Amino acid sequence: SECFDPIDHPHRRYNPLTGQWVLVSPHRAKRPWQGADEQPQPESNLAYDGSCFLCPTNTRVSGDKNPDYTGTYVFSNDHAALTADTPSAPENSNPLFRCQSARGLSRVICFSPNHSKTLPQLSVGAIRKVVDTWNEQIEELGKDYVWVQAFENKGSVMGCSQPHPHGQIWANSFLPNEISRKDALLREYFAQHGTNLLVDYVNSELEDGSRTVVETEHWLAVVPYWAAWPFETMLLPKTHIRRMDDLTQAQRDDLALAIKKLTSRYDNLFKCSFPYSMGWHYAPFFESDANFSDTSTDHWQLHALFYPPLLRSATVKKFMVGYEMLAESQRDLTAEQAAEKLRAVSDVHYLD
Amino acid sequence: SECFDPIDHPHRRYNPLTGQWVLVSPHRAKRPWQGADEQPQPESNLAYDGSCFLCPTNTRVSGDKNPDYTGTYVFSNDHAALTADTPSAPENSNPLFRCQSARGLSRVICFSPNHSKTLPQLSVGAIRKVVDTWNEQIEELGKDYVWVQAFENKGSVMGCSQPHPHGQIWANSFLPNEISRKDALLREYFAQHGTNLLVDYVNSELEDGSRTVVETEHWLAVVPYWAAWPFETMLLPKTHIRRMDDLTQAQRDDLALAIKKLTSRYDNLFKCSFPYSMGWHYAPFFESDANFSDTSTDHWQLHALFYPPLLRSATVKKFMVGYEMLAESQRDLTAEQAAEKLRAVSDVHYLD
Ligand SMILES: O=P(O)(O)O[C@H]1O[C@H](CO)[C@@H](O)[C@H](O)[C@H]1O
Ligand SMILES: O=P(O)(O)O[C@H]1O[C@H](CO)[C@@H](O)[C@H](O)[C@H]1O
Repeated sequence: SECFDPIDHPHRRYNPLTGQWVLVSPHRAKRPWQGADEQPQPESNLAYDGSCFLCPTNTRVSGDKNPDYTGTYVFSNDHAALTADTPSAPENSNPLFRCQSARGLSRVICFSPNHSKTLPQLSVGAIRKVVDTWNEQIEELGKDYVWVQAFENKGSVMGCSQPHPHGQIWANSFLPNEISRKDALLREYFAQHGTNLLVDYVNSELEDGSRTVVETEHWLAVVPYWAAWPFETMLLPKTHIRRMDDLTQAQRDDLALAIKKLTSRYDNLFKCSFPYSMGWHYAPFFESDANFSDTSTDHWQLHALFYPPLLRSATVKKFMVGYEMLAESQRDLTAEQAAEKLRAVSDVHYLD
Repeated sequence: SECFDPIDHPHRRYNPLTGQWVLVSPHRAKRPWQGADEQPQPESNLAYDGSCFLCPTNTRVSGDKNPDYTGTYVFSNDHAALTADTPSAPENSNPLFRCQSARGLSRVICFSPNHSKTLPQLSVGAIRKVVDTWNEQIEELGKDYVWVQAFENKGSVMGCSQPHPHGQIWANSFLPNEISRKDALLREYFAQHGTNLLVDYVNSELEDGSRTVVETEHWLAVVPYWAAWPFETMLLPKTHIRRMDDLTQAQRDDLALAIKKLTSRYDNLFKCSFPYSMGWHYAPFFESDANFSDTSTDHWQLHALFYPPLLRSATVKKFMVGYEMLAESQRDLTAEQAAEKLRAVSDVHYLD
């Protein structure tokens, strides 16, 4: 009888960071497509747009005027999902109607004054400023909040309502689902094996190489073995780093370079401004919240996650719907095949 | 100091079926929108389309010709995500690289020969045929597979590649993530309380009424207390039913009516063919798979889930991106506000 081959046969892979499986159907990559095409992203060449809320010197909905900034620029989101002074919610003893009050705040980070330059089109020096801004924001907000989510939604297909290159920071008085689940699984692995899950994983991937997309002196970007999105990647330091603040100056410079290379490969894949949501996971600020008695973080490793929706071209994306929403994530090409495609294109941006 | 009010204050609600929280930001519903608009769905008025793979008498990619069917019509998906004869995968002892071979099959159910009539536009009698087809398929495949996912992706925004009204059935040799997690949580509740979680929930909602969208003699549709998608609903029988096959004839007729009313309210909300993914959850076929030693199912209750993406209009959807992918689902209006909007429109379809 035939032997199992992950390139030909449907299988499930386990994500040790979420405890969830993903269904991989590599034989299915060639089915025809009659479904939706995304509208191609109208690309702006304007360095300055007078009608943009984020460009320097413009006035926002709130009436506030942006300064004539030259690097990054941070301001409070005028429509934050969280408020800093939410009153406490009363306890409800019915386990079917549990509710918690949520405190927090939300800020916007403009990556650059230039309206038309996304991350891969910024210089390594300019990306380094973004890294520093993430770190400053996370450290500042981490004094008051147990979790600070730094992320970027890029492209209108990812719900981004502003073409000006920017990210967001949401601070939370609680550990959100994804972080709380990851914390438990990382902790369990550490207790069981005495080693750090993601440090072990980085070492395995450095040895294997088949899922590597970008390797720099201090950083590794891979399509994780358990990736759900077609071209999902994870960007990790090669040594044990709990939070961004623990990085050396050399590791920060090199992070800017790794981001430039990774996002350039993304744009080069389908010759378009590649949409994604990306963000940072790292050791929560347990020490800032009296509700957490165990403040140990040996089990944590800093990493960035990139979730891009595109599958076949600049306009055809993967839909995580139906079976995926009701049962399990599913993908049509293996992690290794995706990594190979990303390695096959240049790490220098096609417009550079 | 101010009192907590779930209509004004950000809070989190707990989903006892997934063990996950959802962040509710009711004060945020009024932020302006500058982001993507979906392309309005081109609505077809053709009862028959010669170029459609699903219309009666047409020939599919596989070369097979559809019969001149009059009710529902089921065939094997020509591009199935699963194969019935997948060889077993070798064990991997490394917990970071776990892989399982996956067996299964995938079928398409045409809901009606009429190319242009979606579920709410079919007669109650025609919807009853869809109910019977779901049940027959689930019962047949449940003899060989522990899980059979029946679902419908409706609308191109939900990745539906065929406008002809149809659903899918995927049979699995494994319990997918969502089912396995739900099974564990339902089982735990049953062990702890001695009652069925969803039967308790139906009774609470029947008493409360603030989240009710449709109530018929035997069925209740609510926006669940913990809904993540803006107009998410759950459709449940009022009595304890483990699987569709346990329904009486009267409950099946009434299910067709409840589906017609619920999907008509959806279409009426924004006067459009309302996109969604929907599907059925119910007691898995543990008895068909020797890997499951505990075949008890007292903790299960049949229910359908509807996940519609629209938020503000026929063209503006909720994006589950960025913060949602990396941290936690977030919504801008409460479950009660969504239910109120769905109750405010008629349960008779606007085109009827
Ligand atoms: O099978 P279809 O309709 O071609 O494909 C659609 O539904 C599937 C099951 O939910 C998804 O995996 C696909 O991403 C989606 O485009
Ligand atoms: O804050 P924005 O950019 O207006 O909104 C976008 O990002 C948020 C955080 O990921 C999401 O909740 C919204 O659905 C999305 O449209």
